[in-house]
Amino acid sequence: MKKINLASKYKRIKEHWSPKVVAEMNDYQFKLAKIKNDFIWHSHEDTDETFIVIEGKICIEFEDETVELSEGEMIVVPKGKRHRPYADKEAKIMLIEPKGVRNTGDIVSDLTSDDNQWI
Amino acid sequence: MKKINLASKYKRIKEHWSPKVVAEMNDYQFKLAKIKNDFIWHSHEDTDETFIVIEGKICIEFEDETVELSEGEMIVVPKGKRHRPYADKEAKIMLIEPKGVRNTGDIVSDLTSDDNQWI
Repeated sequence: MKKINLASKYKRIKEHWSPKVVAEMNDYQFKLAKIKNDFIWHSHEDTDETFIVIEGKICIEFEDETVELSEGEMIVVPKGKRHRPYADKEAKIMLIEPKGVRNTGDIVSDLTSDDNQWI
Repeated sequence: MKKINLASKYKRIKEHWSPKVVAEMNDYQFKLAKIKNDFIWHSHEDTDETFIVIEGKICIEFEDETVELSEGEMIVVPKGKRHRPYADKEAKIMLIEPKGVRNTGDIVSDLTSDDNQWI
């Protein structure tokens, strides 16, 4: 049985907006990411997506509001809901979602990262 | 869109070993619990179960080893694997698992708590 230490895993993440898988539960994955500055508008048509802020502060812009999340806060973005995450300073987040979810959802862009990269 | 502040939610939890649902993602739930002293041996035959330690230190005893987890550490217990969590001092944990999972798994005991209690 192998435990996962989040701080150790974050040390292995260099790029922003490039989620890395650290654990799998049934057909779901836990991914860690460092984020900074703006991401793109996108949605995930087939699944909800959970954000947990592990360190720092992030914002998620929705079409009708912007939600600010600090360390120790989480949100579940419903499937199909367009959103745009951003962070003025580098922040560390955990994402929980089914295997095979593209980080940029319905969009392919320079920010689209390879799926299923484990650290 | 409603964010969840974990510290605020923990203030509403009085009993030990009584997981409370704080969020739902597809057919999965995020549950918070305060734990202290010994839980019972049990397993979940149909699903993996994820533990994340939010505050304090816990141990999970397996038949062949015991894993100690501190704040910022997590583990995925594979389905069917017998385990017994315990904590010498009160600790705060997050559980992630499908809706409808009984906290005591295959066992019904005094520690079995009502499923699907939201806070």
